[in-house]
Amino acid sequence: MTRARLVDDPAVKDCTISEISRFNEDLCRIKGWVYNKRSSGKIVFVIVRDGTGLIQAVASREDVGDEGVKLLDRLPQESSIVVVGKVREDKRAPGGYEIHLLDFRVVDEADPDYPITLKEHGVDFLLDHRHLWIRTPRQRAILTVRARFMAACREFLDKQGFIEVSAPILTPSVCEGTTTLFETRYFEDKAYLSQSGQLYMEAAAMALGRVYCFGPTFRAEKSKTRRHLAEFWMVEPEAAYMEFEDLLKFEEAMVSYVVARVLETCEKELREIGRDPEVLAKIVPPFPRMTYDEAVKALQEKGYEIAWGDDFGAPHESEISLMWDKPVFVTHYPKAIKAFYMQPDPSRDDVVLGADLLAPEGYGEITGGGQRIHDFDLLMDRIREHKLPVEDYQWYLDLRKYGSVPHSGFGMGIERAVAWICGLEHVRETAPFPRMLTRMRP
Amino acid sequence: MTRARLVDDPAVKDCTISEISRFNEDLCRIKGWVYNKRSSGKIVFVIVRDGTGLIQAVASREDVGDEGVKLLDRLPQESSIVVVGKVREDKRAPGGYEIHLLDFRVVDEADPDYPITLKEHGVDFLLDHRHLWIRTPRQRAILTVRARFMAACREFLDKQGFIEVSAPILTPSVCEGTTTLFETRYFEDKAYLSQSGQLYMEAAAMALGRVYCFGPTFRAEKSKTRRHLAEFWMVEPEAAYMEFEDLLKFEEAMVSYVVARVLETCEKELREIGRDPEVLAKIVPPFPRMTYDEAVKALQEKGYEIAWGDDFGAPHESEISLMWDKPVFVTHYPKAIKAFYMQPDPSRDDVVLGADLLAPEGYGEITGGGQRIHDFDLLMDRIREHKLPVEDYQWYLDLRKYGSVPHSGFGMGIERAVAWICGLEHVRETAPFPRMLTRMRP
Repeated sequence: MTRARLVDDPAVKDCTISEISRFNEDLCRIKGWVYNKRSSGKIVFVIVRDGTGLIQAVASREDVGDEGVKLLDRLPQESSIVVVGKVREDKRAPGGYEIHLLDFRVVDEADPDYPITLKEHGVDFLLDHRHLWIRTPRQRAILTVRARFMAACREFLDKQGFIEVSAPILTPSVCEGTTTLFETRYFEDKAYLSQSGQLYMEAAAMALGRVYCFGPTFRAEKSKTRRHLAEFWMVEPEAAYMEFEDLLKFEEAMVSYVVARVLETCEKELREIGRDPEVLAKIVPPFPRMTYDEAVKALQEKGYEIAWGDDFGAPHESEISLMWDKPVFVTHYPKAIKAFYMQPDPSRDDVVLGADLLAPEGYGEITGGGQRIHDFDLLMDRIREHKLPVEDYQWYLDLRKYGSVPHSGFGMGIERAVAWICGLEHVRETAPFPRMLTRMRP
Repeated sequence: MTRARLVDDPAVKDCTISEISRFNEDLCRIKGWVYNKRSSGKIVFVIVRDGTGLIQAVASREDVGDEGVKLLDRLPQESSIVVVGKVREDKRAPGGYEIHLLDFRVVDEADPDYPITLKEHGVDFLLDHRHLWIRTPRQRAILTVRARFMAACREFLDKQGFIEVSAPILTPSVCEGTTTLFETRYFEDKAYLSQSGQLYMEAAAMALGRVYCFGPTFRAEKSKTRRHLAEFWMVEPEAAYMEFEDLLKFEEAMVSYVVARVLETCEKELREIGRDPEVLAKIVPPFPRMTYDEAVKALQEKGYEIAWGDDFGAPHESEISLMWDKPVFVTHYPKAIKAFYMQPDPSRDDVVLGADLLAPEGYGEITGGGQRIHDFDLLMDRIREHKLPVEDYQWYLDLRKYGSVPHSGFGMGIERAVAWICGLEHVRETAPFPRMLTRMRP
């Protein structure tokens, strides 16, 4: 009866694997799941996971009895288990510690047909089982990096006096292109799922000065690439009285800050993912800059068939981003290929004060932004040129009617940025439950 | 030409009104808008807003010249303006400081027909001009409280080891009732806008231990009440191995923490809104609890015609919440009126281990949560009883097949909680751009 007592003993403290070092040479209780195990007959080594990490628990006949060893030995992967044992530092153990197991209780013996075994699986199979796939150490690490990355973005913005303002998702009109909208019936009306909170953030910046929204955005893109999701998160800061040059400085400060914070808080996770922290340690200001003109020239020199005025595709962005070991700003795009609200360069009317930030190593665009048109007449001209319904933009025009000021902002796509930081081939692993052209389940 | 020089002088530091005390007796530059003004002929008093607060700038002929005074005097409300002046402590000034204006530049003279004057306006008119209404001090204060409240929620959860996991918005199946869904075409399929991230958080809790999602959720409610929005934000924590009693303790700790943080960080804003901080200072653990049985009895004693088994409406919740000066947990609701996933009370099968937290002063429900069913067979029975498509819930059932554990969670509606904290009559003012039955614009 010793076993039953210790696992329930309130004097034994609950502990997560991430905080195990604080319990060295002490007893602790871990509530988790069996991730893997091996046995030598007399001793069973159980790798326990609890969502914060992995630890090896060593169970011997002396401590858990013959039955205990047998029970552990036949437990299927993913069975839930509460273990109590003594924490011991062990340089050879993956996390630096192991647990000398003294008592345990099986909470639920898993079905033995757990689909995600420790073997290789195809990605479609894994995505079909995303609710279980996220239990693997690598996926846990990626989702943890994502969470810390998002927290670091907010931390930076909050410190800089930005106020989080939730942008609406259900909107009557269109921000970026009309071909990729999800439409829904809104009572007696039609609504579209937001592609960007920017226009609303511009209104909020005129009220609160410096603001940001941080939430899901939607693009019904028919393209099936490694960089597209139908639903993705964006952080979109917008600041009144911020001009183009200050925007670029602000962006590079923010991107550098969040990368540094991830390096600080996710060392273990980056190692688990196999990402070299040295590559990320180089991400410090200033970031290189190229004008669109320079970028086109550089691409032409590399043999790309691209003419001035063409938009960049993924291969172009990749190529440019490979020229640097830091993110690079491509600035001053032709007016014709950018959104209607972009401020023209005062020294040259055919290009705009806009910039995309391309992450290195071929990743390409992670942010897009620029200075917005603040002149009423100019904005009205652009709205008409783009054949947008003026009536829908009346409120947006009001911002230029009542105390307009120069202002700038940008949007950073969370999944793309996290894919870069983690060094992943595809954005899909950075979303907890990715939504793609052919996938909305689970 | 002195004027033009000083306002552009890089030696003069930019400053926000919220940090003005650091500039006492010093020069500073504020970039903002004209909120109000009055004039004595020789002197103009301009109330400037910059999104962080209000300050009075005093302009005299000696400092800005005759023309300067005249220009300021005729500037319409909401004109954008950059001012440079000396900061002086003044006990009579609303924020404790005023600015002795030395130089200024009008960035954009607003149209004189600014619709939101300092007079009273009807709420429909204000909502039609929400993009401008948010510029008023009271709306700025409410949105600032909202932002600090959201930040405090994350702060609490992050400290407690919870990982933010974004729940998908586009979902193939249904979490809460089926009658209030927004539907959209998802390529070749149909999708619904998420009403709650809970089911996904349960999967994530089995992978990461303690998780939360924080984002918009949608209910196509046909009801037009002071507590309903079609789009609202929720924070939804979920924890593996957390049982009902611990959930209630966790909820009261979190709600108390965020209220305390708002009191700490939003003193000025609460004053602006007219909210008595003393009322909020009482919000400390433990919170009172009533079972559903007790609540029904108490309502009957107050003369309400309600029978055991009936669900509470807004008037019932209000009445119960008026019985206490802290939020009250109503626990152990009848199984029949709660969601299919709620764990039955082991000592009594007709009620569930669920609780709603009702905010005092008649506000009613701000959180709903409970322990989730962890037994596979029981969950399968419930899914069938509720006539839900088993196929859609296969992945959710998997969580009970592979290492199931007792687990609990709750959802807190941000707009309702902020309405309570700010002491507002209607939730609509707590959303930057509220979406209601009859309103999706601006």
